[in-house]
This record gives sequence, structure tokens and C-alpha cells, in this order.
Amino acid sequence: MMNSPFLFDTKTVNYIIGDGALEQAAKLFTQYQSVFILMDKNVEKFCLDVLMSKLPDIKVRGYIKIPAGESSKSIEHATHIWESLTNMGASRDSLLINLGGGVVSDIGGFCASTFKRGLPFINIPTTLLAQVDASIGGKTGIDFLSFKNQVGLFVDPKAVVIDPVFLKTLEFKYWQSGFAEVTKHALIMDKELWKLLGDRKFTEIEEWNKIIMRSAKDKIDIVRYDKTEHGIRKILNFGHTIGHAIETFYLKSDQPITHGQAIAAGIICETWISSKMVKLECDNVEEVIHRIDINFNRLPITEKDIPKMMLLMRQDKKIIDGDIKFSLLRKLGKAVHDIGGISAELIRDSFLFYINNKKCN
Amino acid sequence: MMNSPFLFDTKTVNYIIGDGALEQAAKLFTQYQSVFILMDKNVEKFCLDVLMSKLPDIKVRGYIKIPAGESSKSIEHATHIWESLTNMGASRDSLLINLGGGVVSDIGGFCASTFKRGLPFINIPTTLLAQVDASIGGKTGIDFLSFKNQVGLFVDPKAVVIDPVFLKTLEFKYWQSGFAEVTKHALIMDKELWKLLGDRKFTEIEEWNKIIMRSAKDKIDIVRYDKTEHGIRKILNFGHTIGHAIETFYLKSDQPITHGQAIAAGIICETWISSKMVKLECDNVEEVIHRIDINFNRLPITEKDIPKMMLLMRQDKKIIDGDIKFSLLRKLGKAVHDIGGISAELIRDSFLFYINNKKCN
Repeated sequence: MMNSPFLFDTKTVNYIIGDGALEQAAKLFTQYQSVFILMDKNVEKFCLDVLMSKLPDIKVRGYIKIPAGESSKSIEHATHIWESLTNMGASRDSLLINLGGGVVSDIGGFCASTFKRGLPFINIPTTLLAQVDASIGGKTGIDFLSFKNQVGLFVDPKAVVIDPVFLKTLEFKYWQSGFAEVTKHALIMDKELWKLLGDRKFTEIEEWNKIIMRSAKDKIDIVRYDKTEHGIRKILNFGHTIGHAIETFYLKSDQPITHGQAIAAGIICETWISSKMVKLECDNVEEVIHRIDINFNRLPITEKDIPKMMLLMRQDKKIIDGDIKFSLLRKLGKAVHDIGGISAELIRDSFLFYINNKKCN
Repeated sequence: MMNSPFLFDTKTVNYIIGDGALEQAAKLFTQYQSVFILMDKNVEKFCLDVLMSKLPDIKVRGYIKIPAGESSKSIEHATHIWESLTNMGASRDSLLINLGGGVVSDIGGFCASTFKRGLPFINIPTTLLAQVDASIGGKTGIDFLSFKNQVGLFVDPKAVVIDPVFLKTLEFKYWQSGFAEVTKHALIMDKELWKLLGDRKFTEIEEWNKIIMRSAKDKIDIVRYDKTEHGIRKILNFGHTIGHAIETFYLKSDQPITHGQAIAAGIICETWISSKMVKLECDNVEEVIHRIDINFNRLPITEKDIPKMMLLMRQDKKIIDGDIKFSLLRKLGKAVHDIGGISAELIRDSFLFYINNKKCN
């Protein structure tokens, strides 16, 4: 049985989420006389026909294409998007649709909101990761001088339309990447979602519609109370303080890993730190680790990599006055943020815990 | 006798305006551990020492310089600013000071607000035009593909500190440029200011402190009610619909004129249109024209230039569905906006009125 799409209209953003969301959202698009669609080549191949079949009445005036992958989040591609919008005659009453994963909504949101001081845009995420995370919350931007999201801004789309129909063609590694964020949402704020995910491989899950609706709603609830990440939004960084360092480390190597693989490793390390710093029980630690391990292989991190990763952590933009603040798990479904005073030794030990596959005690 | 600086704290912006404003604002700056100053070479020469003598305690970590002039509002210079901020270690708790005219606050506001999703910035305008107009209202941006402000956004500075001390070294043409906007503020919303300006050459004015405080406050009052220019803010466009076309026409020629000269001409044309469209009395028209003519020479526009200017007007970004909406004067001190249905013939006649120095009747 199909669940109805979930409609949620915050003060500034219309969210439409779940099976049938695109049809439900049709009238959001037809009010614009000229619509532009930003996408990459994979999305053009796998998702554009789906979109046009569900929304036959939108007045598409032009397509803007960027290469797939994080390297498209550059000032050069931003310039290409602004040029395309200019040359195709976009005006403040046009609409940009960001059709794709997080890269497309990040750069598309940035370019739209800075074009003629603000072109409206709507995100239609096509990956699990983008559906439960990147498309929600108004973070936009491009990478600059090898710093991630160095140039960008917080800006809300007019709407986010999240339709699981796009996930049919998604590759395993993209499912896995999104699953890491779904797991994080469950751990930091949603015990019910944790139960729903169950102690199983994500490939065995059938209730995706329900899980996506729930996980996306978790993120919406956080960002509507703290858009600019001065408070509660920081709990979304659980698993990411160490996870980002791991991700950057592998990006600089010849063996890049997915965001989800890095975050899965970060979750293990930070779950263990939670047991040392905020009294997360060892039973809970083991439960988290078991679920991660049945879904993600351990990364081949070695002891000599640890200092490099710790250096990368110190270069992260969230660090203030040298003290790295963590978001940690108080219990399953409940995170706390701004936990400081975590020693370099404890962080190092968390890597060793991960590398050596130790037990919590 | 010195008037006290005028303090005005709207929900998001601190305004400090008038003689002594810099000293009054000192504590706004000292709370930041690292301050960066953006300026051009003229400002460095004439204004930097003044600033540092008034604010000796600010912790300047670095200076960022751009060439003087509108051509600095480019993506290349924006990239230079982002690079400088990155290389000098600016973080979200740093401050950027935009010290200079409208070009500096336009590009500086854009670069600051998009650096790491939002570096705080404070505008310290050093020209009359910037003090009563460009530094206020949150419009930021750069020119792109020969379109003015094609890339940018509405974003508020933390504060705007307007101190007439900087005007002592200002050249005649920059005084004149600012005077056009002061005159506009009087005409659209401030009959008292109109009286204060008086029927005299602006070089004879001594009450600048009072006039700047009043004129800046007029702009603040408008933009706080309508930041994104969907309503009342449009009255600020009085004189600018035709004025911008004239400015662009001359920019493309070998004889560029100042913004003020273009707006002065635009004011004459649009004041005359006001008499035809919204019943501005001919006595008032003559009064406005007299004040403009004693302060600005008529531009050498010829009849054959008119079609080119009318084409430029049609390319302006404020035009929706082909009908050019004007802001016009109902009486001295009162403008109305969104007046449509103005025929091409009437616009052409307004140019002829200007060119041939006709009388209102």
C-alpha cells in the first residue's frame, strides 16, 4: 500500500516527500513561465525522462549540464551556470530546478540565489543521500582552493520535492552512502527510525518510502530551528568530525572512498568516544557497531595514518580556538553537541579502536 | 555646534551616522579578534590613516586591495578577495570592513557573505554617494558579462558607520554624484530635506552633517520595510529608469559620465513624465529642474541617441512582461511606484523635453 506524500510547509520552504511527491508538487512548477533544469550527465540519462513524464506541463526553457562528481563544485562551473542563465534569458521570475545529488543542489542553490540577487530554485534530489540530507537545510556552495564549501551561503529553496521513484536506478554504493546518513539521523534523534531500520543489511530493507519520509523529516526538524548551525543543528555533525577527516585523507590518496564509507567509520569512532565522554552504554556501542559492520567493510586505515587524519581534523572550519567540539551520543536516539575537552589521545584511541576492531569496555 | 551621531539599531543592522560616528562605533570593531580591511588605492591614500587614528584598537590582520573603479566589480576580483581571506586565515568569527565607495561595499559584501557561508562585514562608506545610498540596504554584487550586478545577493552588514570626516578630501565630481541621490531622497519622501537643501548650489551647503543624517535615514526607512524591492523600495528608482539607460549609453561610449550626472538627467525626464502621468504640478516641475540645472550641466544627448537609450531601458532587469514600470513624483516629497502604461512616445518626448530645455505646460 502506498503512503501518501508527506507535505510540510515551513515558513519559507515547501517540502513534499514520499511516493507520488512529484505529481503532488506539479502546481509548484507550472506557475513559472520559464524553467531551467540543472543536472549532470548521469541524471540526464536516468532521471530526466522520469521527471518529464511526471511533470509534463512545466515550461522548460533550457537545460544546464555539469559533469558528475564533486569536482564540478568549482568557480569555473559556477561561472558556466551564471553564463547559461544569462544567455538563456533567466530573470528573477524564472525557476531553476536542481535535479540530482548533493553536488547539483549545492552549486545550483548557490548560483541561483546569487543570480540577479535571487532566482527561485527547487531541489529534486535523486539519490538517497540527497533525499534525506543534502537537499534539505539550505547549505549551498562550491569548493575553493581545495577547501570544501569555502564559498557559499545558507539559502532556502522554494521547495524540496523528494520522490523515491528516482532511487530505482541507484547504484549500490550510492544507496550505501545514503544509508550512513539515515543511520546517523536515527542515532542522534529518532529511536523509532532506529527500530524501523532493524538489525539487518540495508539491501534487505523494503520500507524505504517510510524510512525516507521519517529521515528527511528529522533533518527538516533540526534545520528549521537552527538554520545557521549555532546550536542544535550541530548534532548533525555526529560521525562527521572524524568522518570528514577520513574522507579528506582518502580524497588526497589514490583510493577515494564514498562519503558514506567515511561517515560509517566516523560513527564507529565517535560512538566509542561517546562511551568515554558522555556515558553511552557499552551495549549500545556494540549495537551500533554491529549494524555498521554488516553494512560497511572496515577501511584499511593504519596506525601511521592517524597523525595525518588528526591534522586534517584541526584544519576543519568548525574548530574554534583549537578545541575540537564533538557531537556525541548520550543514548540511542539522543545526541548532545558542543562537547569539548576531548584529548588528542582519546581521539587517537578511537582510531585504534576502529583499526583493531576492539570491544567496548 | 556638532550634532551627536545618530544611532539606529534595526533588527539586523546597526547604523551609526554623523560627526563622531567612528569613535562612537569603536566597540563594534574591538569585539572581533581578526579584522580585514577591503579598500582601493585612493581610499588607502586618503582614508586609511583617518580610520586608524579614530579606531586605534581594532586588530587588523590584513588588507585586501582592489583597483579603484567599477571595473573592479568582477568575478576575477571576487576570486582575489576570497583567496586573500583564505590565505590570511579568515574564519566565520572574523570581520571584513568595506572601507570606500559603492564598489567596495558591493563586492566586499558579496564576498564576505559568501565566504564560508557568511563572514560578518561592516560598511564604512567614504563618499557622499555611498554614505547616503550604496552602503545602506543590503544590495551586494558584481558585474558579469557586461550586466551590472548580475551576480550578487541581498545581505545585511552587521553595521554601517557613516562619518562625514571622510568627505573632506572628496573631489567635486563625487560630491556632485552624491548630491543627485540626496536630491532624489528629498523628492521621493522628504519635503523637509528638500527645504534644507534649498534653492542653491550644493557647493554653498554647509549643513552636510544634518543632510547626510537625514538622507541616510530616509534610505534606511525604506529598505527596512522592503529589503527585496517588491514594494515601497521601488520609489528609490525614481530618476533611475531613464537615468540608468543614460549611464549605460555613456559607459559604452568614449565619454563616460558619473552616476550622478546620469541620475540628474533622469530626474528631469521623469519629473516631466510625472506631470503627464500623475499630475505633478508644473510649478513643481520647474522648481526641480531649476535646482538640477544650477548643479549639473545638461548632457549633450541628441535626438538620434534616443532610440538607443530606449532599447537599453528595455534590457533593464526591472522590466516585467515588456511594460516598463516607473516610480514617479505625485508631489515634492512624495513618490508613487509601479506606474505602468507609459507609452514609448511619452518616454521619447521626455528626452526631447530634456534635450531642448523646454518648459512644463
